[in-house]
Amino acid sequence: MTSVDLNSDLGEGYGAYACGDDAAMLSVVTSANVACGLHAGDPEIMAATFRIARERGVAVGAHPGFPDLWGFGRRRIPFTPGEIERLVAYQVGAAQALATYAGHRVTYVKTHGALGNIAAEDRAVADAVARAVKAVDPALALLAIALSAQVSAGEAAGLEVVQEIFADRGYTEKGLLIPRSEPGAMITDATEAADRVLAMVESGAIITAQGNTLPTPVRSICVHGDSAHAVATAKAVRARLEGAGVTVAPFRP
Amino acid sequence: MTSVDLNSDLGEGYGAYACGDDAAMLSVVTSANVACGLHAGDPEIMAATFRIARERGVAVGAHPGFPDLWGFGRRRIPFTPGEIERLVAYQVGAAQALATYAGHRVTYVKTHGALGNIAAEDRAVADAVARAVKAVDPALALLAIALSAQVSAGEAAGLEVVQEIFADRGYTEKGLLIPRSEPGAMITDATEAADRVLAMVESGAIITAQGNTLPTPVRSICVHGDSAHAVATAKAVRARLEGAGVTVAPFRP
Amino acid sequence: MTSVDLNSDLGEGYGAYACGDDAAMLSVVTSANVACGLHAGDPEIMAATFRIARERGVAVGAHPGFPDLWGFGRRRIPFTPGEIERLVAYQVGAAQALATYAGHRVTYVKTHGALGNIAAEDRAVADAVARAVKAVDPALALLAIALSAQVSAGEAAGLEVVQEIFADRGYTEKGLLIPRSEPGAMITDATEAADRVLAMVESGAIITAQGNTLPTPVRSICVHGDSAHAVATAKAVRARLEGAGVTVAPFRP
Amino acid sequence: MTSVDLNSDLGEGYGAYACGDDAAMLSVVTSANVACGLHAGDPEIMAATFRIARERGVAVGAHPGFPDLWGFGRRRIPFTPGEIERLVAYQVGAAQALATYAGHRVTYVKTHGALGNIAAEDRAVADAVARAVKAVDPALALLAIALSAQVSAGEAAGLEVVQEIFADRGYTEKGLLIPRSEPGAMITDATEAADRVLAMVESGAIITAQGNTLPTPVRSICVHGDSAHAVATAKAVRARLEGAGVTVAPFRP
Repeated sequence: MTSVDLNSDLGEGYGAYACGDDAAMLSVVTSANVACGLHAGDPEIMAATFRIARERGVAVGAHPGFPDLWGFGRRRIPFTPGEIERLVAYQVGAAQALATYAGHRVTYVKTHGALGNIAAEDRAVADAVARAVKAVDPALALLAIALSAQVSAGEAAGLEVVQEIFADRGYTEKGLLIPRSEPGAMITDATEAADRVLAMVESGAIITAQGNTLPTPVRSICVHGDSAHAVATAKAVRARLEGAGVTVAPFRP
Repeated sequence: MTSVDLNSDLGEGYGAYACGDDAAMLSVVTSANVACGLHAGDPEIMAATFRIARERGVAVGAHPGFPDLWGFGRRRIPFTPGEIERLVAYQVGAAQALATYAGHRVTYVKTHGALGNIAAEDRAVADAVARAVKAVDPALALLAIALSAQVSAGEAAGLEVVQEIFADRGYTEKGLLIPRSEPGAMITDATEAADRVLAMVESGAIITAQGNTLPTPVRSICVHGDSAHAVATAKAVRARLEGAGVTVAPFRP
Repeated sequence: MTSVDLNSDLGEGYGAYACGDDAAMLSVVTSANVACGLHAGDPEIMAATFRIARERGVAVGAHPGFPDLWGFGRRRIPFTPGEIERLVAYQVGAAQALATYAGHRVTYVKTHGALGNIAAEDRAVADAVARAVKAVDPALALLAIALSAQVSAGEAAGLEVVQEIFADRGYTEKGLLIPRSEPGAMITDATEAADRVLAMVESGAIITAQGNTLPTPVRSICVHGDSAHAVATAKAVRARLEGAGVTVAPFRP
Repeated sequence: MTSVDLNSDLGEGYGAYACGDDAAMLSVVTSANVACGLHAGDPEIMAATFRIARERGVAVGAHPGFPDLWGFGRRRIPFTPGEIERLVAYQVGAAQALATYAGHRVTYVKTHGALGNIAAEDRAVADAVARAVKAVDPALALLAIALSAQVSAGEAAGLEVVQEIFADRGYTEKGLLIPRSEPGAMITDATEAADRVLAMVESGAIITAQGNTLPTPVRSICVHGDSAHAVATAKAVRARLEGAGVTVAPFRP
């Protein structure tokens, strides 16, 4: 029987600023990628998110990003791979401590925003992230965009790598995300998103814009947490998967 | 044979800003309290400080403070005890991860600046700090101002508490630091500082301004890292102790 | 014929974070207090807010606060009066420049959050704010909580002082705001708020919880911009005033 | 009789962090480029620098940079030209207000670090800077690297542009700075620097590495404020110029 994880970026508020409906998402997803205080999040939000996740049986990961609150971690700040290593280590450690404090445990790391995009494309950065994770705790898994540089870098470092696909994005014939500026990049209809996800999970492959299949061990589905329709899409995806007999559960219980 | 530790606040630069002569101090002290990025320090400085400390056999502690870079952690920001718990947990975790990354290990926690002053006076804050440390890692020691609220709070929480005195400060008859605004608060002469420290270590007591002794298990001496005469004072204290047959070594090797 | 201003705190987002429905509020209020980047706001948000305000004939003021994004300017950070002077001058200048850039003009200053609360109570801080405003541009008005220390400090400095009342708050017999922890502090019903505001504007007095009147030249009404019912309350207050023949217009056109 | 200005980047500390010997430099230079709080500087430092500059007859300029304290404004943060416009306007306004507060007046703008480098190369960014300066106050001069894109952009905007050369840098045959990674980039000997500056001022031309002259109206010499030898080099340059009968004075008294 097939099992798949549903992950979302959560804990992305800051102080008085809220971002998304975390309480609702934590009732739908099975893994929460928790911001670590540099691009979003703060110790109060982190601890609260870890605590609610624990209560609901949701697995938690550290979600490090660039130290760029103004840009929400979405801008490519020119850090060297070495600096990125230290930035990732810092954030993973902070998340581990607050998860432990909240009675939970960080079991994986997923890079955020621009850091994630660079790490997906640039093997040197992907290696830096993998080195940081391995140095801090080699038992942590790496949640990575399917077929990205992070997959090979993580595996080369001896980390467990979990590949994810996006519920609301179209894929090129090479299995990469279609850039947002091009047609077919975004799947805005929740039902269509749910159908596509199910098809990819059942076929064990990424399905491209032209309908080709690229066999990939898809173990997690990323649903966005900060858009207006986030909760509805996440629920639709989950319902579709469960309706087809797929178990929705954390990849790291 | 008596053994005592020599600790100093290090890694207090930020980005391009330097603070004190860390490289020199790391050849004199036996324990380094490393800033954790919120009142001073950044991941680059933290990792570099941990690495040099490891190479020189210097023990390292997390040195959390208020998130107040502008005020260098010296202002009393109105956080609740609960918020302080999360702030301390966050910083301890970040320091642990970067120490591990650098091949070293954080063995203790010491609060910085205004956070340290409040925790010394206010038992509720001292308890919050102790709870945070215990929750993150109960094997960590707490390095605390002798006779302060942190000593009793740490012991009540079951943590190992190490009491420190200051090489350059005068003490009231109750064993508290003489406020900086009053005469006798600062000991600026390195030789006098060294003599006083030796007398306190040998007598196992804090010696007050009027010459009274308050028996206290003094296990560490704090020397400042950011003043002009910091290195000279630290060297004088160390030489005086070693000249008298006192072993100068980390309390947690 | 009576005329009164309707002001609200706007431009309080930061980067990707939104706060309140500024676009809607700028169609209801006649003066916008614009955050200056230290407790909220950033240059993009400031310029956009000034531009929309200009297009809609809404007057704009600088709304300086403590440099405390995490606390949204609501925490009492221990700055000296001298430091507060420089903080206010800095923010007023930044706001003036961006207003000019957007084709508008800052005509007044109103202090935000904890800085506003301290300046309302503490004459030394109120004097510091007044000195800063006067030094930067003596033609700026000071929008101040009615009967507060800012009124006397501003007048003593020779500034034009405009007194405001709050649409949704109850008043003590001395004309101060009833603390939020006490009954009668908040007026949550929009109709009741509108009725009270009209009564105070028509009588030229603050009306206390016990129904006493404290004659006060009320020239502006503050409506909150960041709550769920903010726009509805503001519209109700405006409609009630205009329905009674009161002109709702900026105190500085 | 020839007159030339001597400018330096000052006020680059932050909170407890110092940077360079500003007090000494303010006795040597004739124009101070004052950091505006986003890449360095804070309201306390800004006001103090403006006050000392006024007392010593030193002209002051706003020295805006990227909002990147960690990177000291030396990293190329990906802002759009439009965002740069608002960033520059914000900082110029803040500096104007604090200069006015300190009894002085900002008479020019010079871009800092990475922002300056990009504005020197990229006409779109140079235009954005010029638009911001013009919008805030068209009477402000623009202090620009000789022969850079800022010169043409500033002139096209109708601003007064003052061209500067660097005392300690070598020039390519096109009049650009030799990159720091190449030989001849840095002139470390104070006497050699002073001789070169005098030769360029007297000849009214940039002198290249191969000794060619590129006629340029050099009105200001930039000496660095944050290096160990900064004060000595500045003094040597000034003494050499004055010894040869050149008046050293602000370009905007």
